[in-house]
Amino acid sequence: MSRFWSPAIHNLTPYVPGEQPQMQRLVKLNTNESPYGPSPKALAAIASQTNADLRLYPDPESTALKQAIAQLHGLDPRQVFLGNGSDEVLAHVFLGLLKHKDPVLFPDITYSFYPVYCKLFGIDYTAVPLDPDFAIRIADYNTPNGGIIFPNPNAPTGKALGRSDIEALLSKNRQSVVVIDEAYVDYGAQSSIPLLQGSHCPENLLVVHTLSKSRALAGLRVGFALGHPALIEGLERVKNSFNSYPLGRLAQAGAIAAIEDQEYLSQTTAKVMQTREDLVSALGALGFETLPSSANFILTHHPQYAGEMLYQRLRERGIIVRHFKTARIENFLRITIGTDEQCKELVAALTEILSVRN
Amino acid sequence: MSRFWSPAIHNLTPYVPGEQPQMQRLVKLNTNESPYGPSPKALAAIASQTNADLRLYPDPESTALKQAIAQLHGLDPRQVFLGNGSDEVLAHVFLGLLKHKDPVLFPDITYSFYPVYCKLFGIDYTAVPLDPDFAIRIADYNTPNGGIIFPNPNAPTGKALGRSDIEALLSKNRQSVVVIDEAYVDYGAQSSIPLLQGSHCPENLLVVHTLSKSRALAGLRVGFALGHPALIEGLERVKNSFNSYPLGRLAQAGAIAAIEDQEYLSQTTAKVMQTREDLVSALGALGFETLPSSANFILTHHPQYAGEMLYQRLRERGIIVRHFKTARIENFLRITIGTDEQCKELVAALTEILSVRN
Repeated sequence: MSRFWSPAIHNLTPYVPGEQPQMQRLVKLNTNESPYGPSPKALAAIASQTNADLRLYPDPESTALKQAIAQLHGLDPRQVFLGNGSDEVLAHVFLGLLKHKDPVLFPDITYSFYPVYCKLFGIDYTAVPLDPDFAIRIADYNTPNGGIIFPNPNAPTGKALGRSDIEALLSKNRQSVVVIDEAYVDYGAQSSIPLLQGSHCPENLLVVHTLSKSRALAGLRVGFALGHPALIEGLERVKNSFNSYPLGRLAQAGAIAAIEDQEYLSQTTAKVMQTREDLVSALGALGFETLPSSANFILTHHPQYAGEMLYQRLRERGIIVRHFKTARIENFLRITIGTDEQCKELVAALTEILSVRN
Repeated sequence: MSRFWSPAIHNLTPYVPGEQPQMQRLVKLNTNESPYGPSPKALAAIASQTNADLRLYPDPESTALKQAIAQLHGLDPRQVFLGNGSDEVLAHVFLGLLKHKDPVLFPDITYSFYPVYCKLFGIDYTAVPLDPDFAIRIADYNTPNGGIIFPNPNAPTGKALGRSDIEALLSKNRQSVVVIDEAYVDYGAQSSIPLLQGSHCPENLLVVHTLSKSRALAGLRVGFALGHPALIEGLERVKNSFNSYPLGRLAQAGAIAAIEDQEYLSQTTAKVMQTREDLVSALGALGFETLPSSANFILTHHPQYAGEMLYQRLRERGIIVRHFKTARIENFLRITIGTDEQCKELVAALTEILSVRN
């Protein structure tokens, strides 16, 4: 604490990201990164821009990247907003679109950055409990609100809603913005982006994506939001009052090439989904119960073993997964889907841990 | 406008950066970039990190980069805060350190992003007029305030204060944070960083730097703030409530190598300063009057020719400089110092424009 801090920041509780340990020979299954590298075309595009032109500012509007994203998704470039990772996009969304008199609604078990943004910007919020099966129940969001936001599939549960659920939510909620955070949508869930295409684009639907997961570019920092041009214009006003150049020249070049390489995306996400099914089976054979996942991670628990103990024993063996001290899921582990080999190491370690304890 | 925008953003007036034109064969002297590329060591460091590890999140704390900056400036790493360009650093400074009851003070002619931040975060401010010679007069800041901020050297005037002036300001102003924005300090001004060294580090001095100017990495997006650890801790709270990973892996790697290459910095800044003196002389021979500059740009005007007309005529010839429609300087041009060749092209063009008009 310092008397020089603005009063508004005295009570902030910053977000705590999954650790990025510096240990060698680690099986890192804690922050939902892709186990495969980015598209080789993205690396080549970055290399081609690593030259003396880095002395120049980037295009502040990221025009070419907006065009690439719009073309991929059948949208107009005016429907695309870009940021330094989807976390920055979400920050601008909270300040620019979700700060109203009524509280923002989001699930009680979800991305833990949402309440942090609310505190930073002084936004009231209500956490809506997931149902007993850890699913988002659309009917529970039918109350006055200043906005609704959740990931689909949800994190850290991995459970997804269908596009018809999102349409049903929109049909009941016309007075505030509905934000669908599709960070993990490429691993088997239905995207809501088709709802934004053409002249029937709802005025109040925003879909957020990141290149940090399925595009395997967490180290480059690119995220985007898609929606009605009027929503995007509001976000641009905030962005241009905060930082004109959130995406550097290398980020723009790498992102364009990654977005254009759909074949690589399909191959790597299909592989991750296959590994996920194999891992769920292997864990089931050990007695683990796993929520049905449409993401590149699973949320799993064992009826006879405490989640925190398993987390610690795995860590001692150089395998890092994520454990949350959150009510209702404190006994679960969230495990990122790695390569087949990494998942086999995980299963072998758990087999050993369980045998010692039996 | 959309009814879905947060009320607070309805009246924003976003910052307008200098244009990044896509024209070919351009003499671009409008956004104060270095005419020379970044250190070759920075390019090599970026290339060495352009690999499959981009799938991984970067170190959220940028530990190695903080250490490199601390070592260069004789500080502790806990005195270093990093951001996605100094614009993002400044945004966090306004929200985290400058939002108090009393107004923030800054010059009436200065970096035009300051009032934009104030509007975004609802911060009251007072613009303090420069003196008749376009200098910052320390005595004018001796009023109750929620913080003081200005660039040193100031932009777009290029005029610098000495370190003793900053010490005098600090001795009178103990109740709020003093932010010295040293974006252009490497071109001949005195840095206030030595005041931060050792156990006498003032609790309320913050010095902001960027790698976009003298380090020639505007395209990479890295800036930093230096100050007392308690001030830095406040900024970290804001940053970690906004975006955990503002600097990607390539930005961190390139910045470390650039910071460590002091020899390259000395060579390129010395060259720019020599070119600046030559340009000021050549313009003087044409009748231009130029403010004494300690930056990589000059603010100049001709008693017989309107600034806007000169700006337009130069533009028609493919030479882009900056013209501000700001009271007291509407007749001036702000010209970035380019290569010797670019400056000769500029002088030749102005010679021609003036001869046509005579």
